[in-house]
This record gives sequence, C-alpha cells and structure tokens, in this order.
Amino acid sequence: MNSVPQVGWSLDPQLAADTVPIGDLPLSRVLLNADANFPWLILVPRRAGLTELIDLDATGRDMAMAEIAAAATALRAETGCDKLNIAAIGNIVAQLHIHIVARFRNDAAWPQPVWGKLPRKPYPPGECERLAAALRTKIPLA
Amino acid sequence: MNSVPQVGWSLDPQLAADTVPIGDLPLSRVLLNADANFPWLILVPRRAGLTELIDLDATGRDMAMAEIAAAATALRAETGCDKLNIAAIGNIVAQLHIHIVARFRNDAAWPQPVWGKLPRKPYPPGECERLAAALRTKIPLA
Repeated sequence: MNSVPQVGWSLDPQLAADTVPIGDLPLSRVLLNADANFPWLILVPRRAGLTELIDLDATGRDMAMAEIAAAATALRAETGCDKLNIAAIGNIVAQLHIHIVARFRNDAAWPQPVWGKLPRKPYPPGECERLAAALRTKIPLA
Repeated sequence: MNSVPQVGWSLDPQLAADTVPIGDLPLSRVLLNADANFPWLILVPRRAGLTELIDLDATGRDMAMAEIAAAATALRAETGCDKLNIAAIGNIVAQLHIHIVARFRNDAAWPQPVWGKLPRKPYPPGECERLAAALRTKIPLA
C-alpha cells in the first residue's frame, strides 16, 4: 500500500493534546491516548475533511480496516487484554478518528464502553512512553 | 462477493430478542434494534465462533467494511441523521456484532455514545416495521 496524499490535513488539536504519537501507517496516524485508565489507540486517516467512515472511498475504507486490524492485533499482543472495543463515534471531535481500546474484565468501566465514563488519569512517569515504544515495535509503521 | 459458509453459526439469543431482522448481506445478517430511542442497525457476520473483528480473515474484514458502509449509507439516507456512530464492542454479548447508530444533535444521549445510557423504549405500533421496510429498499440485500 502506498501512502495517501495529505493535502490540507492536520491533526485535530484536541486529539493532539490528549495523545502521544506512535507513528504513521499508509493511511492513518496512530496515536496513544495518554489516559492510564485504558490502553487506547486512536487512528486518524490523514485526509482532509473526513468526519464519517463512509467519507472514505472504498480503497480508503479497506486501508482503514487493514490498519485497524494491525493496530488491534498489536494492542492485544502487548496488553493481553480480554476484549477489544473498536469504534468511530466523533460526536465531540468531528475529525474522523477510530478508537481501539484494550478492555479487561477488571477495568474500571467494564462491561460498559469507556467513553464519558471516567475522568482522564495520567500515566505514571515514563509509563506512557514505555507503552508507546512497545507498540511501535508491534505495529508495521510506514 | 459470494456468500460465506454458515456452518455452525446461529444468531445469539439476546441479539435475536432485541431486534427485527432486515435481511442478509453476503457476510452479515442485518438487524434493526427495536429501540425507539435511536435508529440503530446491527450487523452480525454469519460465521461461527467470532468475537473480535480481528477473528475475521482479511477477506472477511473487507466484506465487513463494505457491508458496514452499505448499511451506514442506507441508515443515513433514510433518517437524515447528523452523525453515524459505528462500533464493535461486545463486552456483554460475545458474538461479533457491529453497531451502526444514527445520531441527532437533539437525541436523548447526545453527544455521549448510546450504550448503557437509556432504558430501551418500544417503537409506536407499526413504526419499527415501517423503518425496517424502508431500510430493506436501501440496503443491497443478498
């Protein structure tokens, strides 16, 4: 897969503020949500003006699905989670982004979804960077 | 796309109890959640033993993405919704299923996600069947 044009695209400021960058896949920027409540990746397709999955053309959607699978596989391998929660919601931040959340039967929101449930919690010093580095070795970054 | 084998697959009883069937796409059964709070489709890939999107092989994932797009396009066309929320969660019902929810800026949960927010609400008599029939004309059923 080739990388896609990025003309006019820039990362939403709220997504940038809440995350640590992991790297780029051919379509998407991969971010780690800096919230210690849940190991949580966010994929952001680097094309301007997208708000819905169906704003991607068929090729873009297949790329997105392949990248979701790669990121989800890496996140599960790294965390040993019990379940993956994958979602494109975007009711608050409009820029198309896809959540991939590692869930555990003993996490603080189980079995409810994570959105809007808990105040954000900082990682202990160094821990977010450690997780980001481990994920970089498992995700086939461009 | 050809339809997939369904050996050993049957619809989860909770999903069956909560929904009205719309029909089958090549991979997935399409269900309408019988909850009047939100127009809400659910896709269930007809392969036995799946709990995660990444339990599908690459071909199955591409089929799932194409079917998500077809169902989401139909749901938005029928409802005129402001936003689509698309998610594979499965913390409670394990059988792989994908939610496609039509959201409105004035709906009862906006801007929060829908899961676990509101008690289920029955449709007025005939209305769920009317919506199901309208969606059947817009989704390219097998």
